[in-house]
Amino acid sequence: MAETAQAAVVFGVLNETSEHESRVALTPDIVTRLRKAGVSCLIERGAGAAAGYMDEDYAKTGAEVLPADEVVARADALGFVDRPDADLIAKVKKGTWIIGMLGSFTDTDYVASLEQAGLVGVGIEKLPRQLSSAQSMDEMTSQNSVMGYKAVLVAANAYGSFFPMMTTAAGTIRPAKVLVLGAGIAGLQAIGTAKRLGAVVTAYDVRPAAQGEVESLGAKFLDLGLDFSKGQGEGGYARQLTAEEQAAQQAAVDEKAAGFDVIITTAKVPGRKPPVLLTKAGVDGLKRGAVIVDCAASELGGNVEGSAVGTQVTDGGVTIIGAPYLASEVANTASNLLSRNVADVLAHFVHDGRLSMNLDEELDDALVVAGRTN
Amino acid sequence: MAETAQAAVVFGVLNETSEHESRVALTPDIVTRLRKAGVSCLIERGAGAAAGYMDEDYAKTGAEVLPADEVVARADALGFVDRPDADLIAKVKKGTWIIGMLGSFTDTDYVASLEQAGLVGVGIEKLPRQLSSAQSMDEMTSQNSVMGYKAVLVAANAYGSFFPMMTTAAGTIRPAKVLVLGAGIAGLQAIGTAKRLGAVVTAYDVRPAAQGEVESLGAKFLDLGLDFSKGQGEGGYARQLTAEEQAAQQAAVDEKAAGFDVIITTAKVPGRKPPVLLTKAGVDGLKRGAVIVDCAASELGGNVEGSAVGTQVTDGGVTIIGAPYLASEVANTASNLLSRNVADVLAHFVHDGRLSMNLDEELDDALVVAGRTN
Repeated sequence: MAETAQAAVVFGVLNETSEHESRVALTPDIVTRLRKAGVSCLIERGAGAAAGYMDEDYAKTGAEVLPADEVVARADALGFVDRPDADLIAKVKKGTWIIGMLGSFTDTDYVASLEQAGLVGVGIEKLPRQLSSAQSMDEMTSQNSVMGYKAVLVAANAYGSFFPMMTTAAGTIRPAKVLVLGAGIAGLQAIGTAKRLGAVVTAYDVRPAAQGEVESLGAKFLDLGLDFSKGQGEGGYARQLTAEEQAAQQAAVDEKAAGFDVIITTAKVPGRKPPVLLTKAGVDGLKRGAVIVDCAASELGGNVEGSAVGTQVTDGGVTIIGAPYLASEVANTASNLLSRNVADVLAHFVHDGRLSMNLDEELDDALVVAGRTN
Repeated sequence: MAETAQAAVVFGVLNETSEHESRVALTPDIVTRLRKAGVSCLIERGAGAAAGYMDEDYAKTGAEVLPADEVVARADALGFVDRPDADLIAKVKKGTWIIGMLGSFTDTDYVASLEQAGLVGVGIEKLPRQLSSAQSMDEMTSQNSVMGYKAVLVAANAYGSFFPMMTTAAGTIRPAKVLVLGAGIAGLQAIGTAKRLGAVVTAYDVRPAAQGEVESLGAKFLDLGLDFSKGQGEGGYARQLTAEEQAAQQAAVDEKAAGFDVIITTAKVPGRKPPVLLTKAGVDGLKRGAVIVDCAASELGGNVEGSAVGTQVTDGGVTIIGAPYLASEVANTASNLLSRNVADVLAHFVHDGRLSMNLDEELDDALVVAGRTN
């Protein structure tokens, strides 16, 4: 037992530094799971507090609760919801494994900085999601599910009417008509949640395969009368459309949108400007009191023209909520799911009590974006 | 046609003056309905705006949109979500009918002020809800339904975890355990909405009859091991418990509450201090991250000891939301339902193109609290 403990891989997790981040990459129940896999855990003091996980909870399951510097000094691997910034990278000792959303699809400079620092970078964004061995590591799926659920709660809470039909002695209130644009993981969860609440749900996605998924949840697929064959791109995400295709899609969506009370847009393309699915003309065509939740809102723009992070109300009485941090707002559940995903990524690389990679394996080859050695 | 229009009862509705009130006592579709009943409608400019009903919507359905003074000067009856204050009463011409929640159960001074001003007071709080002819006038039911629905949305939105069970490749997230205290109209709607969202719901009410209603919605009835026979009081509301009964109930609820993630309390007794259902000890026994929505929070206290209007987080990480204005926060639907109720009360008193009462009728006798003449 003592030898196993000495040989254990040491995994450290720090407080996330991003202003909008309440999640944490390790939750107490996962500490137990990792110990069984030969991994001992260090966590920075207070790192889980914003997600409802207290230092004593971590201590109870066997993690050491330490100041950040000690976590960094002793860890063989560090796990992140996001990724470490340049200041932190400068402090991490050579050979440390960095596991997180490293943005390697678009930010080659960042990956180079990890290489330069002599670190091993495991970019969960590169997870080959279709592999069955990758399912339990699929952080995009778990976090987008949370996002889709929360998007509906935010929309329902901002909407001045009922989602469900309501029948009273004085008459009947019709159910809300909800349109979900983008039927990936987040969109499907949004469809399911809006249906649970009693709304009449319609959804749209550029990927032809989405129609069956949407309909299997009991929602209607929005027929734009357009054909974007081969809409599916790498990694299961939607591919980018051409400018002409986007314009045609926008015009059709704008026109159809007018009939809906609530619109939820979920079309993120990681690291890239999100496609505009609803233009200003579409927003202006909506009924007074309509609510839009744009999950893709960012500094690069969102799925809705003119959307910004936060809430705005147009002159026409339409509420537009730009909400890119929804998973973080359900921090307890989101962290728990994410922590399981990160722990499974970590455990995948633990062999005989130490971290190692085998780049001949598809999963390793995909995930390791810096410090690649065989 | 011209004669009918001249003979019509004139109904006026003003902007509600209470700071927290977004509802309006007349919505555009009801204008049409009232015209068919021989009632013409006046509405103050902007009165429906906070509920999403614009002046042009009222004009389209045939209401006259006017400054407040003109509405008051010309109306035979004025309808309110709440009730007119002393300043307004002073401006209303003698013989005008005032229809609203007049608080006549507890505020006899107010009723006397209506008498003094020579007004007819129709207090919807006195509606004999059990009469089938009163069902479509039942504003307490319609507004409490909206309140119960919204309470769940507010709770789910504040809760850091999922309401539904979630199964992912990395494991399962258990559903939230929701406790609804008070299973009247609001409580039953809260039960239904929380169940829709996938929570595991338990409920409690002092009225023995509530058990069957709770269970018919698929929720569990909380067995406190106490017997409050004859818990049902006048008008279908819970009666007030004795001090000993309240203490025993509190201790039992406090103990059972510890197992729940979300607690929604809905035990209002109109015009009186709400019963404390959960004491500070009960709140302190809850898990970190638990959320309480206290719909009875008021300046008189709430169902939760220490609750106040607004949101607070205890040292133990429990979020307490004192939320007495929930129906107003779903202003569009709430106004529409309320407007139907008020219109049906008004229409009940319209006979041969004028307003009159027959105090030999049970409904009239109950509702008319000031200016009673036969």
